[in-house]
Amino acid sequence: MRVETGNKGKIQMSGNTGPFERMQSLLADDMIAVNQLIRTRMASEHAPRIPEVTAHLVEAGGKRLRPMLTLAAARMCGYEGEDHVKLAATVEFIHTATLLHDDVVDESGQRRGRPTANLLWDNKSSILVGDYLFARSFQLMVEAGRLKVLDILANASAVIAEGEVLQLTAAQNLATTEEIYLQVVRGKTAALFAAACEVGGEIADAPQDQIDALHTFGDALGISFQIVDDLLDYGGASASLGKNTGDDFRERKLTLPVILAIAKAETMERAFWVRTIEKGKQQDGDLEHAMKLMTKYNTLEETRLKALDWANLAKAALGPIPESELRSLLEELADFVVSRIA
Amino acid sequence: MRVETGNKGKIQMSGNTGPFERMQSLLADDMIAVNQLIRTRMASEHAPRIPEVTAHLVEAGGKRLRPMLTLAAARMCGYEGEDHVKLAATVEFIHTATLLHDDVVDESGQRRGRPTANLLWDNKSSILVGDYLFARSFQLMVEAGRLKVLDILANASAVIAEGEVLQLTAAQNLATTEEIYLQVVRGKTAALFAAACEVGGEIADAPQDQIDALHTFGDALGISFQIVDDLLDYGGASASLGKNTGDDFRERKLTLPVILAIAKAETMERAFWVRTIEKGKQQDGDLEHAMKLMTKYNTLEETRLKALDWANLAKAALGPIPESELRSLLEELADFVVSRIA
Repeated sequence: MRVETGNKGKIQMSGNTGPFERMQSLLADDMIAVNQLIRTRMASEHAPRIPEVTAHLVEAGGKRLRPMLTLAAARMCGYEGEDHVKLAATVEFIHTATLLHDDVVDESGQRRGRPTANLLWDNKSSILVGDYLFARSFQLMVEAGRLKVLDILANASAVIAEGEVLQLTAAQNLATTEEIYLQVVRGKTAALFAAACEVGGEIADAPQDQIDALHTFGDALGISFQIVDDLLDYGGASASLGKNTGDDFRERKLTLPVILAIAKAETMERAFWVRTIEKGKQQDGDLEHAMKLMTKYNTLEETRLKALDWANLAKAALGPIPESELRSLLEELADFVVSRIA
Repeated sequence: MRVETGNKGKIQMSGNTGPFERMQSLLADDMIAVNQLIRTRMASEHAPRIPEVTAHLVEAGGKRLRPMLTLAAARMCGYEGEDHVKLAATVEFIHTATLLHDDVVDESGQRRGRPTANLLWDNKSSILVGDYLFARSFQLMVEAGRLKVLDILANASAVIAEGEVLQLTAAQNLATTEEIYLQVVRGKTAALFAAACEVGGEIADAPQDQIDALHTFGDALGISFQIVDDLLDYGGASASLGKNTGDDFRERKLTLPVILAIAKAETMERAFWVRTIEKGKQQDGDLEHAMKLMTKYNTLEETRLKALDWANLAKAALGPIPESELRSLLEELADFVVSRIA
């Protein structure tokens, strides 16, 4: 299997032997049911704009990683019913709703290699269709009929929204610490990963220690996933800038490699970060200079090691779960996520 | 009691004898608990922007009509617990979240006589804080611990969001029928009124026919409320234009008085509506001409009668509920809503 880097935010590979693909084959029937349910539920009797916007995003070839985690967790814990399909679709709807709102907030023009919904339609449609998908996800999870599941997803929703607001207020603020960064990452990525895994165990009536293990696994996997993403934006630990790199710097986003470099900055270096990130007065050569500073303080490598730590934490978390093919695949998935920056 | 018209969207009166005020006194302790809970739950440990934005809106002196309906319905059905307070706060959070998103979508600059959050902060904050409040509402309703309540509120959320999208796509479209208008009104107003009432009965374990009655009451009250609001925007049935009138025409909103006039328009009149509403090419005197057309076809009076019909329907719906002071007050409330256009 050859891992394609330089495709941030995507798990992509040639060959067909990665843990994600093997999980896909193992859960193929479940996944078909999830996709079917998503298509049914994104319809709207009265407002055709809704399925138009949703289809654009939902069918744009996302990997369905989050619903896959729900399916895998449920089956791994011996679940034999059908409600995990509803929860997997729930998780994908929440994810899609947040993407729609994110693209408006970030003023993004591209997502998954295609123009964003806010560009094709307008911000209004993205806001309201996002609200609709969130409401639909809510209906689906109520259908699964478990208060504990609703509790998990309600709490995750609050962490997600809080993280988004935190990201907004922390943006371009050089005082952003690694702790705030982690809080933001939990909101934008890890909270939904954790909930996706946890509800799978919950619906399967797994023992509480296994449900907790699934939560910790998802949380750590999500954090690792996001740190890798942020590192790849600077070309990975090898700092090889390419076509898809440097966006975060240009958008003045404070991600871990930069936060660590700012923490160590001397006076002149600090002035550079103030000018480029805080004031946004960037000029030619600034990205290269930023890379030089991150290399000087070894923060790309430090970031890589932190991603590896989180991936290892994810794997270790699965301890209480009995060994099985799916457990091995989830462990491999944690390794795979960081293999993009190996 | 003297009713102040010209304050669309608000129930306002001098004197202290209206049904709303009497309901407020009767449920004063409950309402204090709701306000306390709202203040506690709009806090955010990590993102101070959240309570700032929320406080601006929540504390701007809204009448808390929707949470009052929940409290009244629960107590009227004999509820003696404390969870109705959670549901009332839930309903207010959902309402506030939709207001935040509405103001972004409508590009509004004023709400309740104050600058909107999207103007004071930015659209991004309004979108994300709205999402946060929706998540918080979701947590609160889960705490009430009733799947049926969650089902009611999940369905209401979907109707609300669908109605908003429908309003967006129907905007400036002269083909908008009274049926579509009703669908939009259910989304923007009646669905939450209906759910607010229904969950009160549900938490009180009222018989199903009483719960259904509460739903029908809330739905009809909400529709009546919104039609009155739309009529007042043209100065009521007496068509007395003033400081707070004509906004909907200027914003090219298709509300009932205009929809009814378009349905009866002759060729030249139709050209007028196409120019002013569809194409938005308005000039001095257009509002006055629009009023003339609505007067010609008596659509303001027709709208008034429809609002009265819905208010009567609301009152009649309460039939299955045993007589009580709160039931009488709810009936009076329905009359009071339409007294603004009497």
